[in-house]
Amino acid sequence: MIASVWWNKLAATEDVMPGHTPVLTLAYKELQEGWDGPPVTLALKKDRQLKEDGFTIHSEQGRVAIGSPGETGLLYGVYHLLRLQSAGADTDSLQVKENPLYDLRILNHWDNPDGTVERGYAGRSLWNWEELPSVLSERYSEYARINASIGINGTVLNNVNASSATLAIEHLEKVKALAGVFRPYGIRVYLSVNFASPIQLGGLSTADPLDKEVVNWWRQKVKEIYRLIPDFGGFLVKANSEGQPGPCDFGRTHADGANMLADALEPYKGIVMWRAFVYNPTDTDRAKQAYQEFQPLDGQFRDNVIVQIKNGPVDFQPREPYSPLFGAMPHTGQMVEFQITQEYLGFSNHLVYLAPMWKEFFSFVPPASLKAMAGVANTGTDANWCGHPFARANWYAFGRLAWNPSLSSEEIAGEWLKQTFTQDTTFVLPIREMMMESHEAAVNYMMPLGLHHLFAWGHHYGPEPWCEIPGARADWLPSYYHKADKTGIGFDRSRAGSAAVAQYPAGLARQYDDIQSCPDAYLLWFHHVPWGHTMKSGRTLWDELCYAYDRGVRQVRAFQQLWDSMEKQVDPQLFKDVQARLSIQVRDAVWWKDACLLYFQEFAGRPVPYDIERPIHSLEALKKVRLPIGNYECPSEELLNKNR
Amino acid sequence: MIASVWWNKLAATEDVMPGHTPVLTLAYKELQEGWDGPPVTLALKKDRQLKEDGFTIHSEQGRVAIGSPGETGLLYGVYHLLRLQSAGADTDSLQVKENPLYDLRILNHWDNPDGTVERGYAGRSLWNWEELPSVLSERYSEYARINASIGINGTVLNNVNASSATLAIEHLEKVKALAGVFRPYGIRVYLSVNFASPIQLGGLSTADPLDKEVVNWWRQKVKEIYRLIPDFGGFLVKANSEGQPGPCDFGRTHADGANMLADALEPYKGIVMWRAFVYNPTDTDRAKQAYQEFQPLDGQFRDNVIVQIKNGPVDFQPREPYSPLFGAMPHTGQMVEFQITQEYLGFSNHLVYLAPMWKEFFSFVPPASLKAMAGVANTGTDANWCGHPFARANWYAFGRLAWNPSLSSEEIAGEWLKQTFTQDTTFVLPIREMMMESHEAAVNYMMPLGLHHLFAWGHHYGPEPWCEIPGARADWLPSYYHKADKTGIGFDRSRAGSAAVAQYPAGLARQYDDIQSCPDAYLLWFHHVPWGHTMKSGRTLWDELCYAYDRGVRQVRAFQQLWDSMEKQVDPQLFKDVQARLSIQVRDAVWWKDACLLYFQEFAGRPVPYDIERPIHSLEALKKVRLPIGNYECPSEELLNKNR
Repeated sequence: MIASVWWNKLAATEDVMPGHTPVLTLAYKELQEGWDGPPVTLALKKDRQLKEDGFTIHSEQGRVAIGSPGETGLLYGVYHLLRLQSAGADTDSLQVKENPLYDLRILNHWDNPDGTVERGYAGRSLWNWEELPSVLSERYSEYARINASIGINGTVLNNVNASSATLAIEHLEKVKALAGVFRPYGIRVYLSVNFASPIQLGGLSTADPLDKEVVNWWRQKVKEIYRLIPDFGGFLVKANSEGQPGPCDFGRTHADGANMLADALEPYKGIVMWRAFVYNPTDTDRAKQAYQEFQPLDGQFRDNVIVQIKNGPVDFQPREPYSPLFGAMPHTGQMVEFQITQEYLGFSNHLVYLAPMWKEFFSFVPPASLKAMAGVANTGTDANWCGHPFARANWYAFGRLAWNPSLSSEEIAGEWLKQTFTQDTTFVLPIREMMMESHEAAVNYMMPLGLHHLFAWGHHYGPEPWCEIPGARADWLPSYYHKADKTGIGFDRSRAGSAAVAQYPAGLARQYDDIQSCPDAYLLWFHHVPWGHTMKSGRTLWDELCYAYDRGVRQVRAFQQLWDSMEKQVDPQLFKDVQARLSIQVRDAVWWKDACLLYFQEFAGRPVPYDIERPIHSLEALKKVRLPIGNYECPSEELLNKNR
Repeated sequence: MIASVWWNKLAATEDVMPGHTPVLTLAYKELQEGWDGPPVTLALKKDRQLKEDGFTIHSEQGRVAIGSPGETGLLYGVYHLLRLQSAGADTDSLQVKENPLYDLRILNHWDNPDGTVERGYAGRSLWNWEELPSVLSERYSEYARINASIGINGTVLNNVNASSATLAIEHLEKVKALAGVFRPYGIRVYLSVNFASPIQLGGLSTADPLDKEVVNWWRQKVKEIYRLIPDFGGFLVKANSEGQPGPCDFGRTHADGANMLADALEPYKGIVMWRAFVYNPTDTDRAKQAYQEFQPLDGQFRDNVIVQIKNGPVDFQPREPYSPLFGAMPHTGQMVEFQITQEYLGFSNHLVYLAPMWKEFFSFVPPASLKAMAGVANTGTDANWCGHPFARANWYAFGRLAWNPSLSSEEIAGEWLKQTFTQDTTFVLPIREMMMESHEAAVNYMMPLGLHHLFAWGHHYGPEPWCEIPGARADWLPSYYHKADKTGIGFDRSRAGSAAVAQYPAGLARQYDDIQSCPDAYLLWFHHVPWGHTMKSGRTLWDELCYAYDRGVRQVRAFQQLWDSMEKQVDPQLFKDVQARLSIQVRDAVWWKDACLLYFQEFAGRPVPYDIERPIHSLEALKKVRLPIGNYECPSEELLNKNR
C-alpha cells in the first residue's frame, strides 16, 4: 500500500503537545514524528518579505529555525523541511524563503449529497454526511494533513451542480464539523450554491438577484453560516450552465448575480468564485461562448468576486489551447480551474501526469495575472485516495503549482516519487521520464493534432467518434467537434470559419488563423484540414494522424515495460496495482487508435501507413461496444473485458 | 476471388477434342485454353530415363514437343509447360526432363459420411454422397484438375476413422462415380477401411485377420470393388489407435492385419497403407510407442504394404523432431504422412506455409528412403477450396514436393505466388519471404523450443497449458507434455528420462541426449530444463522462452504490415480476406503468448524481460475462455471475439 501522505516515514499518532495552539501542536507533532535532524525552532516573526503563509528555513551549526508571520506559515515550513528530508536534500545549511504565489489554493469537490462523486473514480465521497456531525472519520484529518503538506488552503466540499439543501441549517452543522477538523491545517471550507436556493430552500417566488427579498435571504443565510463557521471561505457558483439556474433566468447578468452574493459575503471577507463555464445549444461555436458572455462584463464585478475559468475554452479535453477569456478582462479577478480528476484522460485507469498540461497553460497565461488556482479533486474513499497510485501525483502537483507555478513538472514529479517510493535514482529518473511523457502519450492515443471530444455518449472514457444520438444537442456529439468528411477533418475556427481565433491576442490570432503557422498540436482545433495537407513533417495529415495514434500506443507499451523492470524496487501490492492499470491503459490505447483511425479512414479513404501496427479490432465490433458506466464510475478490467 | 487453379488465365470450357483418349483430350484442351506460345506436339515415347509419369519438354525454332511413356505423363508435361509460362519463364528453348520421385503422391481426406470433415476448416466435404452417383458436381473435376496440375495421383476419399458402411455396395457405386471423374486426370481412388467391417458389415462374429471367413470376406469385398473400379488404388487403415478396431483386438499383430488385406488386394495390384499412428493409455512415453510397436515387425509386411508414419513421433505438432521409426525398418516399405490441413497450426485462420516444415523433415529422412508421400487434405466446399487463400499454397507445395522433394520451399512459394497473384517481383519477393518465415513465427508464438501439445481440450486451436480434465487420459492433457514445475519445464526423454532418444540413430541420440548439444528447437521435447539453464544465446531458458513468444507476435505483426502494403497489387476481395485472417492471427499470437508466459511464469517465478511487450490478457481471464468448436470447425472472428 501507498503510504498515507507523500512521504512514507510519517505515521499518525495521538500525542498532543500541551500549551500550544492547535496549529503549532500539529507542527510540533509532525516534527516529532518525521524529523530526523537537529533541533528545530518555530518562531512567529514579522518579515516584510513574507506573506502570512510564507516562511523561512535557516539551518546552521546543528540548529534549524523556521520563521513565519503566521502559524499556518510555520506549519508549511515544517512540511517543507520534512519534504526536503524525504527527498534526500542536504538539510545542514538551508537558506529557504518561500511565499505562495496565490493566496487561495483550492480544491473543488464534485461530491453529491448521496455520496457519489461526479467524475470521481476513486470510490465514494470522503464526506459521510449521514454520520456527520457526530462521527468524525480519521480520514478527514488525514485529508487535511495531505493538503496542508502541499499548501492547499481551501476546499469546496460539494458539487458545482449544487443542491439547495446544502444551505439548510442541519447540513451547515455538518459542514461546521468538517471545518473544525480542517481548521488547524489552515484549510477553509467553501460551498457550491444553487442560485435558486431562495426559491427552493427559502420558499421565495424568485431568485432574481436584484430582488430585495432575495438579497435579504442571502444576507441572512450568509450570516447564519458565519455564525457557525467564522472562517467560512465563500461560495462557488455554476450559474446558467448545463441546466443550472442563474441570474440570466431573471433577465440579469452574471455580474448582477455574482455581485449580489459578493455583497452578502463582503462583511465577513468571504468571496464568490463565479464559473465562466457556460455554453448554450445555439449555432455559435461552443468554444466562443464563455468569452462572448463574460468579456463584455469586465469591470462590473465586485472585488471579492473571482471569475473561475477552465483552462481551455471547451471542457478539460486531453489538450486544448488556453481559454482566450484569460487576459481579456483586465479589470476583473480571474482564477483558473484545472481538473485533477481525469474525466477525459482515462479516469483512474490511465497513468497521466497532468503537471505538463498545466504548465503548458501557464506558458500562455502568466501565473501572476491570476488571483487563485482551483483544482477539481480526484479524491475518494479508495484506500489509496485517488484510485490510480500515480493519480496522487496529480493531487500533489496541483498543490505544489498552486503554491509556486514556476516549479517545473520534472521537479515536482521527482519530489513526489522520492517521497512516495524511494530516493534511488535508478527508479526515480526513468519513472520521472515516463511521467513527463505520459500526457503527450495520452493525447497521442486519444486525440492528437488538436482533435477533441471524440468520447462515447454517456461517459467520457472510451472512443465513439461516430456517435449519433437522435435529438441530442449537437455540441454534445463528437461530429460537432471533428467534422470529418471526405475533404478533411477538424473544426474551422479560423476567421473564415467560426472566427474563434479572433478572441485571442492579435499575434496568436494571426498564428492560429493561418493553417501554415498554426501549431500541429492545435491544428484540428482551429482548422478543417484536407486529408492530403502537407504537415510540417512533410507527411500528409492522414499519415501524421496515423503515426500519432501509433506513437501513443507505443509510448504506453514502453511505460508497461519500464514499470515491470522496476518490480524489485516497489512494494509488491503497489507494483501490481500500477501494473494492472497500465495493462488496461495499453488496451485502451489500442482501442482508441483502432476506433479513430478505422472510423476516420472511412472519410479519408487512404491507407494506414504500412509501418504502423495493424488494427486489432474491427470498426464494426467497436461500434457495438457499450460501457454501462455513469459519470461517477470507473470501468473495471472485468467490465471492460465484457463490454468491448 | 482467387482463381480456381494455380494460374489465373485458365478457365474451364466444355469443348471436347474428338478422336483422342480422355487423358489426351484433356491435355489438348488445357493447351488450347492456356497456352500462349508456338504449336505443341504431344508424343507417347519409350524412354528408359523416364518413368511412366515422367516427361520431357523440348522447345526450339518455334516448336514445343512434350514426350512421355504414358498419357498421364503427357498431361503432366502440359501442366508443367503452363506452369513455366505462368511463372514467367522463358519457354523458347526448353530442355526439361522430369520424373516424380514417388510413384504414389496421395491425399488423405478425413471426410466423414455425414459431410463433415475431421480437422477440416474450409467448409464441408467436397463429396456429396447423397447426390452421388447420379449428380456429378463440377467441383469434382476441378478438384482432379488442380491435383493433376501438381502431380497428385491418388486420393483417399474418407476419414481414417472409417465407417464400415464405406464398403457397402450402394456406397461403392458412389465411389465408382467419383473414380470415373478422376480417371482422366490420372488420379486413383483409395478408401479408408474399418478393420471390423467383416463384423459390422458382413455379419461375421470376428474380424480376426487369420480367420478364414474373415479372409474370405475381404477377398470377396475387394473383388466387388475392382469389378466396379478396375483401377482402384487400395486401402488406408487406422487400426488399434484411438479406439479404432484392429488385429491386436484378436491377439494378432499389425503385420498380420495388413498382410491379410494386402493378400486380398495383391491380384489387382492394390496396396495397403497401414498407419503407424498408435499409442495407448499406458505409462510409456507416447512418443516412443509407434516405434516400439512397429519396429519389431520389420520384414514381416508384404511388399504391397506401406507403413504410413506421421512425420513426428507424436501428432502433427507445430514442430516435432522426425519420427525415429523412419529408417528403422529397412525391410519394410514406409511412407510419410504430412498434414496439409492446419489442425495444430491455426486452422484456416493462420497464414502458415508448411513447406519449410516438411523440408526440415527431409533434412533428417532421405526422401529416397520412402516409397510415397501422403498429405491430409485441407480442401472443402469453401469457394476458395482451403479457407485461407494462402492455405492453397500448402496444397500446392505438398503436390510439388511429392513429385520432387528436392525442390526448395522458396522455389515452390515463388511458383505459387506468380501463378496465383502476379509475376511482379515487388510483390513476389517480400511475400515469399513472409511465407518462408511463417512457420517459424507460428512455432514461436505457439510452442517454441520444443514445447508441444499445449492446446485446449476439445479442439486444437487455442492455448490451454493449464488444462486439467478429471478422468481424462494423461497423454491427452498438456501437462503430460510440458511437465512444468518449480524446477523447470519440458519432457525428459533423455536416457535418464523416458529414453526416447535411444530410438534415434546413435549420432543423433547422443546429440539429443545431452542438454548442451540438443538443438534449441527440440530442447524441451527431449529435456526437462531448469528455468535458469543457460541457453546457447547466453540467456536463461525462461528469458529465451519469453523472447521466442514475443518474437512470434512481432513476426506476425510484420506480416500484417507487409500485406497491407500490397493492397494495390492484389484483388480487393482477396486482399481483404487475407487481411482479416492476419488480424485474427495477430490476436491469436498475443493470446498464445500471454497464456503460455503467464501460466508458465507461475512455475518459473521469474519476471518477463522488460523489453518484451507486456501481457494484454490476464491469466484469470484466459482461463475462462471456452471456444465452442468441434474438430471440424474453424472459429470465426465473431466467435473468437465473443468467447475469448
